[in-house]
Amino acid sequence: MEASIGVFDSGVGGLTVAREIIRQLPSENVIYFGDTARVPYGSKSKQTVLKYSKQIVRFLNTKNVKAIVIACNTASALALDEIAAESKIPVIGVVRPGARMAVECTETKNIGVIATDATIKSGIYTDYIRSLDKEVTVVGKACPLFVPLVEEGLLEDRITDDMVDRYLSEIKAYNVDALVLGCTHYPLLANPIKRYMGNKVTLVNPAYETAKELKTLLRENNMLNINNTPKYEFYVSDGIDKFKSFADKVLPVNVTAVNVVDIESY
Amino acid sequence: MEASIGVFDSGVGGLTVAREIIRQLPSENVIYFGDTARVPYGSKSKQTVLKYSKQIVRFLNTKNVKAIVIACNTASALALDEIAAESKIPVIGVVRPGARMAVECTETKNIGVIATDATIKSGIYTDYIRSLDKEVTVVGKACPLFVPLVEEGLLEDRITDDMVDRYLSEIKAYNVDALVLGCTHYPLLANPIKRYMGNKVTLVNPAYETAKELKTLLRENNMLNINNTPKYEFYVSDGIDKFKSFADKVLPVNVTAVNVVDIESY
Repeated sequence: MEASIGVFDSGVGGLTVAREIIRQLPSENVIYFGDTARVPYGSKSKQTVLKYSKQIVRFLNTKNVKAIVIACNTASALALDEIAAESKIPVIGVVRPGARMAVECTETKNIGVIATDATIKSGIYTDYIRSLDKEVTVVGKACPLFVPLVEEGLLEDRITDDMVDRYLSEIKAYNVDALVLGCTHYPLLANPIKRYMGNKVTLVNPAYETAKELKTLLRENNMLNINNTPKYEFYVSDGIDKFKSFADKVLPVNVTAVNVVDIESY
Repeated sequence: MEASIGVFDSGVGGLTVAREIIRQLPSENVIYFGDTARVPYGSKSKQTVLKYSKQIVRFLNTKNVKAIVIACNTASALALDEIAAESKIPVIGVVRPGARMAVECTETKNIGVIATDATIKSGIYTDYIRSLDKEVTVVGKACPLFVPLVEEGLLEDRITDDMVDRYLSEIKAYNVDALVLGCTHYPLLANPIKRYMGNKVTLVNPAYETAKELKTLLRENNMLNINNTPKYEFYVSDGIDKFKSFADKVLPVNVTAVNVVDIESY
């Protein structure tokens, strides 16, 4: 079998990134790992997120992967550099592709970033955006209730609108014209966020940009699969059924093979 | 040093139980472990919660503990029986003390239970309450947004009132007169819950009942400390500073000794 793309996330959110990879790279095999036993990462320390990410990379490396995508903003923010430096195969995260697209979009030179507490505190979006364009002002805001609201299914709900208003009022006041949805769950709230921010603000979904970057990377390194009938494998650290039912809603393919991994042993 | 009481939780919530133990048993040493690297437990499977709980018990048993309190409703629901069966020292959870108090309080014979998804799905409150009194009807409801609302500090807030209304309307319609706050975070929402349920409904806080049960257990087994100047030690799997700042708000004592434990190695 052709080597696969390894994709991992703290849980199910990264499936939105896997979906983009499956759409944009239809000949690639994908191996997805979701750390459902230790989710979420967004409220945890750098040390812990790095440790968990390294265990997952060790697991993926047992699976004949040719590249790894960190499909979790928090892990991309806190662990990408160290993992990429140690890795023999290419590793990309979701932060830089999302940041680059935001810089391409903005005319007002004011960019908003919403993400988990850990991602915002890391300052990585601000640092990277300003390394691309020093004139840009970045307004970041942690939105810890967005993930539980999505997981409760309150995508169109008065309570969600209320929280969108509270979290985003500061960003809106800054006259931003690009807003990075810096957590894999947030694109599922694109409608209420768009309603609140208005049509002049471009919502940047790093999942889409990341799949594009992966495609470029594989092409430039002559690593693209051609005419391969793709195979998709899924691994989780907990809760196969729950994962499967979520994955079936998100992915354009049938999710059959889901296995539990004792990730602490890697 | 006298042997200690070991107390553990998935995170910081169990500190409300530790607080009751410190108040009701002022001569006892307490060793608290909060699994902040893997929090929350309430959305995870029995297998995973049992595995984590066993690791923590192995850790606590390295610390000269004479009894263990599982200060987490989910872990009490999913892991207590197996842990107690294997343990040489007494182990108690928070579910049974809370359930007993609810049965003592009710006159209408309708009891409400709110808890995490895992606790509600386990059916343990219903089974135990009905083993005490077959005439009681138990109405259970999982309230997954309550923990994140508490952690966001929205204790008195329109959004919290809104969620209380949605989660509890079914329970209110059942004419319950006792409501078990079956997750350690929920007592922090006692005010909005009381406003919604009205004065005729007794809110049962298992933390208080658990400390009482522990006291009885220690007394009956001649294990009570007398005239001991108590020592309190705290261990977490992640995020010392965050834990300390929460603990300082909850506990009536100064929280000085907090250490990180590599819990996966136990």
